[in-house]
Amino acid sequence: MDRAHRLTMLGTGLIGDFYTATLHGRRGLDRVEVVYSRSQERGAAFAQRWGIPRHTTSLKDAVEHPDTDVVVVGLPNDLHEEAISLAAAAGKAVLCTKPLARTAEEARRILDTVERAGVFAGYLEDLCYTPKTRKALGAVRDGAVGEVLWVRSRETHPGPHSAWFWDARKAGGGAIVDLGCHCIEIIRSFVGKGNRPVEVVCWKDTLVHPIEAEDNAIALVKFESGAVGQFEVSWTFRGGMDLRDEVAGTHGTIWLNHFLRTGFEMFSSAGSGGYVAEKAETEAGWLFPVGDEVSELGYLDMFDDMFAAIDGGREPVETFYDGYVVNAVMDACHRSAASGRFEPVELDWRGGVTPRVARTATTYDGRTVIKRETLPDGRAKLILKDERTGDFEDRVVSG
Amino acid sequence: MDRAHRLTMLGTGLIGDFYTATLHGRRGLDRVEVVYSRSQERGAAFAQRWGIPRHTTSLKDAVEHPDTDVVVVGLPNDLHEEAISLAAAAGKAVLCTKPLARTAEEARRILDTVERAGVFAGYLEDLCYTPKTRKALGAVRDGAVGEVLWVRSRETHPGPHSAWFWDARKAGGGAIVDLGCHCIEIIRSFVGKGNRPVEVVCWKDTLVHPIEAEDNAIALVKFESGAVGQFEVSWTFRGGMDLRDEVAGTHGTIWLNHFLRTGFEMFSSAGSGGYVAEKAETEAGWLFPVGDEVSELGYLDMFDDMFAAIDGGREPVETFYDGYVVNAVMDACHRSAASGRFEPVELDWRGGVTPRVARTATTYDGRTVIKRETLPDGRAKLILKDERTGDFEDRVVSG
Amino acid sequence: MDRAHRLTMLGTGLIGDFYTATLHGRRGLDRVEVVYSRSQERGAAFAQRWGIPRHTTSLKDAVEHPDTDVVVVGLPNDLHEEAISLAAAAGKAVLCTKPLARTAEEARRILDTVERAGVFAGYLEDLCYTPKTRKALGAVRDGAVGEVLWVRSRETHPGPHSAWFWDARKAGGGAIVDLGCHCIEIIRSFVGKGNRPVEVVCWKDTLVHPIEAEDNAIALVKFESGAVGQFEVSWTFRGGMDLRDEVAGTHGTIWLNHFLRTGFEMFSSAGSGGYVAEKAETEAGWLFPVGDEVSELGYLDMFDDMFAAIDGGREPVETFYDGYVVNAVMDACHRSAASGRFEPVELDWRGGVTPRVARTATTYDGRTVIKRETLPDGRAKLILKDERTGDFEDRVVSG
Amino acid sequence: MDRAHRLTMLGTGLIGDFYTATLHGRRGLDRVEVVYSRSQERGAAFAQRWGIPRHTTSLKDAVEHPDTDVVVVGLPNDLHEEAISLAAAAGKAVLCTKPLARTAEEARRILDTVERAGVFAGYLEDLCYTPKTRKALGAVRDGAVGEVLWVRSRETHPGPHSAWFWDARKAGGGAIVDLGCHCIEIIRSFVGKGNRPVEVVCWKDTLVHPIEAEDNAIALVKFESGAVGQFEVSWTFRGGMDLRDEVAGTHGTIWLNHFLRTGFEMFSSAGSGGYVAEKAETEAGWLFPVGDEVSELGYLDMFDDMFAAIDGGREPVETFYDGYVVNAVMDACHRSAASGRFEPVELDWRGGVTPRVARTATTYDGRTVIKRETLPDGRAKLILKDERTGDFEDRVVSG
Repeated sequence: MDRAHRLTMLGTGLIGDFYTATLHGRRGLDRVEVVYSRSQERGAAFAQRWGIPRHTTSLKDAVEHPDTDVVVVGLPNDLHEEAISLAAAAGKAVLCTKPLARTAEEARRILDTVERAGVFAGYLEDLCYTPKTRKALGAVRDGAVGEVLWVRSRETHPGPHSAWFWDARKAGGGAIVDLGCHCIEIIRSFVGKGNRPVEVVCWKDTLVHPIEAEDNAIALVKFESGAVGQFEVSWTFRGGMDLRDEVAGTHGTIWLNHFLRTGFEMFSSAGSGGYVAEKAETEAGWLFPVGDEVSELGYLDMFDDMFAAIDGGREPVETFYDGYVVNAVMDACHRSAASGRFEPVELDWRGGVTPRVARTATTYDGRTVIKRETLPDGRAKLILKDERTGDFEDRVVSG
Repeated sequence: MDRAHRLTMLGTGLIGDFYTATLHGRRGLDRVEVVYSRSQERGAAFAQRWGIPRHTTSLKDAVEHPDTDVVVVGLPNDLHEEAISLAAAAGKAVLCTKPLARTAEEARRILDTVERAGVFAGYLEDLCYTPKTRKALGAVRDGAVGEVLWVRSRETHPGPHSAWFWDARKAGGGAIVDLGCHCIEIIRSFVGKGNRPVEVVCWKDTLVHPIEAEDNAIALVKFESGAVGQFEVSWTFRGGMDLRDEVAGTHGTIWLNHFLRTGFEMFSSAGSGGYVAEKAETEAGWLFPVGDEVSELGYLDMFDDMFAAIDGGREPVETFYDGYVVNAVMDACHRSAASGRFEPVELDWRGGVTPRVARTATTYDGRTVIKRETLPDGRAKLILKDERTGDFEDRVVSG
Repeated sequence: MDRAHRLTMLGTGLIGDFYTATLHGRRGLDRVEVVYSRSQERGAAFAQRWGIPRHTTSLKDAVEHPDTDVVVVGLPNDLHEEAISLAAAAGKAVLCTKPLARTAEEARRILDTVERAGVFAGYLEDLCYTPKTRKALGAVRDGAVGEVLWVRSRETHPGPHSAWFWDARKAGGGAIVDLGCHCIEIIRSFVGKGNRPVEVVCWKDTLVHPIEAEDNAIALVKFESGAVGQFEVSWTFRGGMDLRDEVAGTHGTIWLNHFLRTGFEMFSSAGSGGYVAEKAETEAGWLFPVGDEVSELGYLDMFDDMFAAIDGGREPVETFYDGYVVNAVMDACHRSAASGRFEPVELDWRGGVTPRVARTATTYDGRTVIKRETLPDGRAKLILKDERTGDFEDRVVSG
Repeated sequence: MDRAHRLTMLGTGLIGDFYTATLHGRRGLDRVEVVYSRSQERGAAFAQRWGIPRHTTSLKDAVEHPDTDVVVVGLPNDLHEEAISLAAAAGKAVLCTKPLARTAEEARRILDTVERAGVFAGYLEDLCYTPKTRKALGAVRDGAVGEVLWVRSRETHPGPHSAWFWDARKAGGGAIVDLGCHCIEIIRSFVGKGNRPVEVVCWKDTLVHPIEAEDNAIALVKFESGAVGQFEVSWTFRGGMDLRDEVAGTHGTIWLNHFLRTGFEMFSSAGSGGYVAEKAETEAGWLFPVGDEVSELGYLDMFDDMFAAIDGGREPVETFYDGYVVNAVMDACHRSAASGRFEPVELDWRGGVTPRVARTATTYDGRTVIKRETLPDGRAKLILKDERTGDFEDRVVSG
């Protein structure tokens, strides 16, 4: 039987709502007992909304409250380190929202803090836990797509809802640190977490919004195996929130669409009169709601894994080390955007060595087989290469 | 705080697995304590598979076991009445899988049994609880599509997995009683449960399988409001399981796809090497898995509603009365298929009266406005009818 | 080399524009030389728009003009017979838009007229000529889906653009005669034109518009082979124009979407500032244009077939006899809607006899094999029926 | 009236078939009169297949044949220059398949040749002419998506069908020169052809096939306006041919899918028994044919534009100068892949100057408005920035 946990929730923004909706929305064992907000008013409203017994404006009191054994950090990025340090000092399990930190250096300090304290630490990277992603990861592990060559992850929407996201001092950047952190960890999950991210090239620009931070970015991440990851992030996308991941392997392909095209389509001339989906732009015309957002976005499976890991004395699927790697990749992105070239990912690598993707050629009549196609008449068409001369030829043979 | 329930699970087929996966798959409060199977071997394997302390081949012992307060009926259709009678006699809450019974007469006896005993009774119609369906129902309630005119529900697949489904004596029929029961209740949910199903026309045939029961059927259900429901069921569909619902209203449209096109697409030349989805036909080529089946198919929300209803002393969204109405509609389908004409739905109606869908005409220049379109130049094109002469005309007016 | 044709176009409504756009839009051989409109003004504008040398308000002059060899009838339904009679008298090839007539009786007279005159007669049923439909029909002929069991065809939109469509006296009915005629011929194409439509059940109603004719209808058409056709038509659909066809066979499935989901998706907060697609409802939000409407809707392939048939001295794919059969099915629909029961399709059948869809059972161990599934471990699960006792059983055997 | 053209077709590979299918497949004015193949046997078969009166193995004879006025170059890349030189010397219009050349230097010589000779020269970039692309370009021109920020173009499939594509000496490279050339010109069409491609960063690798040329590549192209183009090409994609383009603008979004998801879905357990689509991988399971490939891939509109341009004395939409620009961008891609950094696009620019995408900020209460959202209660939530302090705040105001 699972053990029930009592939580301190730090933060009452959109992410705090999503987390608490997940925890309190089902007939679950685990409950939020204390909520912290910098604002007395927002804390009270949040506690009322979710049936939480206590709220406070003292971060320390919230973390150290004797009734709770787990601290959930749902604060702006610049407050993660302080909150985690307090939780570690209190000897409590700590779960931190994405990104772990604003820079790899900060992430490294956070990692050291929890490792020194010996407390359980989980990285709340929900999008690696969506039901589709988990099933797709299982298929990849089972060999359904062969060796992974190329992973693309996109997260784009018209921009975040709270002021602090737009303030690079607090957030640590713009669309990359807000959205790219998801994409990088999704990519790592598909190419294999033991597959070292070696170097990165990144384009970023501020095309639309009157801010300093980037509102658009694309990056390519080269992994030790030869696989490449590609992320696309934007705060200027029009049409809702576009969350898509794609995996190309030697023997297969996976396409995931988490938000805008999930089998739910609605046309309304009246306006839906209600909430459609996170970051939906309109309430009339063709709309694309999602069924159960907390499930589709991975929150359900994420918290299940976290508590099961605490109870089972094991690591969660997403660790603070993973968060640190993500920050290291993002740091390389920013360096690359400045230098205009591939930049190495600088990090303390714990993941071992991954061999290069295999290329094995077969031969026919002493020539390398480049491609084999079956013709309608049952014969095979071969494209052959003579390795001595470098010449290529078409050859049709019996099948 | 929710109250934890202890369950007796009757039946160890596919539906028993789905139910128990739902209950035991999350950090939930509620647990199966006793499982009944007609086969000692299957009962033992099931108990082992799901960590259930007790299994038995005695229906009576299972139902009456003192550690459980809720009985879940996941048995073949011909065993529902006996199991429910035992549960009612034991004074326990009883949850019964779909269909409630083989005929309206049998359903009526079951309904009387639980009402006389005063026990809680929930109808486990999962497809009315899918997250997409629930959100869509909310949108309809909020007026997003105006008045509902037409609801289509389809469930088709290549045929069920267990022998008893194919035996009309045990099942009570073929594809209609297996699949149509889902569709009818989905349709009722969208047109409104207080909207009386008045009459039905149905085509059914046995086109492919060497059985007596129908393997294909289509029916039209006329409701008191003038709305029409349409269901399409098949045990001969090729390509997986097609679960789609559509709603057409005066001001909008809803299209739901629950299974084959949900934003998860995979091509595998290797074969996925594992479970793709319920009733998937292939393991290679283009595949369309679903993320989390127990969530997408509504099991999660269904059990949450059932236990919340028990705890809250209220009716669940899906009641035995609903199951009885569904059986009454199916009975009319079979009569119509025999007579070749619309047949009345015979039932003890508790739902009140629903007025006809409103048609309100506006007038222009003393004529009825049939249609109004905005032209590219901003003017409006009207189609007008002179009610005296019955003549129609096009008229372009300033917008 | 193909022979160039010179055409008389009768009618200047939406369909006349589509036809002429098709003929003049490509580097084609064939040109409209004369256009007829009841209105001098609309005729002049049409001639100007499409570069047509002559326009007239005399139907007779237009048909008999010595420069043209082919007459295209794009007039309201009540004017088809007169126009075709004139063309037949003039000894010219005649191509008539859908539906051929308002009733089977009228269609029969038209058919007799052209057959007596011995002129070429083509039925302009464009939706049987869409590139997708033609390729799908080829796949069906090649056996890709096995024997056809069930065909569904849907055409729904918010209602036609011209006044005469809404006037049942001129049109011969409502949504059935406007849209159902397409669906019926699509269904016939897939089940086989030699497969006799035997009987029909139909529901129709006037749910939204202030007219007498039906604005919604569904019908089931039973064919001699046992296959069933299903059409759904509506003048009250919201969201654009929904054109979808589906075919279910013993060995496969085909889904065609001709309009709203064809791989072209656009979100515009600005409004597209232009034409999106026929019967699109909005210019902002999510829009679903089609690429080349005259190609996607089949006009291109349709005229190619017509002229090739004239040149080759063969029948076109769509003949006036087909148009007559469609009218006969629609007549049965109206009778059924009135009687509430299946009604026979009354027609002079020229198509021969089609045997019943085959059901062939295999046996295992003296029992009928109902279903065979491959288990993950490579063994096979059989569902068997003992024909003596009528009992069904599951049996797992080595694969 | 259009003028009929008589063509010399050079080459009998897949592209020659597509071109001739386009020209001879409709009731068109224009015909292939002479075909050239290096192989007597393939030339004869091609002439027979398409009803072409003459075939020859002499390139010179084919080009100079007195019956033809237009030469179509459908040869391997290393033969373009010679063929075009011959056509220019013969004073004939010349249409050349993509890519124009193997390098910008070669393309520049070709461009000079035709400009010196004063002959009409058209670049056969079919994918800029697909009906979807043309309609999307029209919508962009009309302002439907605002200013274009980001264009992504993908072409991936399992590798080409003929030997010479795999031989970098003949082709000039691998997937970039085969597929990237399409993507670059699609991107240019959307960001505006007068928008100078400034610099490029590119990753390429040979991950699967036993060849020297790249079988995978991604590149980012920065344009003068600040817009970015992104192309993804692969010869190792599994699942068919993936042709997708996406446009993100300040006010809208466009998604085009040209091949794998176009509203045509088929499941076949029997195998389709025929041609599904270019580069389809399977004939059973779920298949995604296209309707009319020559229309969907743009060949129809492309040749119409070419002949209309010849007749009208104007430039075609796609010129040899465009082909030269594409080669210049590809050259920069190869340099970047070698240097690991952004490389300038070196070319003789004729396109003028494009201003930077506009960023215009509004103010509220002396602060910069970063974002404005409408709340459910009708009020507006503003995110404001104080430009003096750099602080951001949320503010809710009446709407």
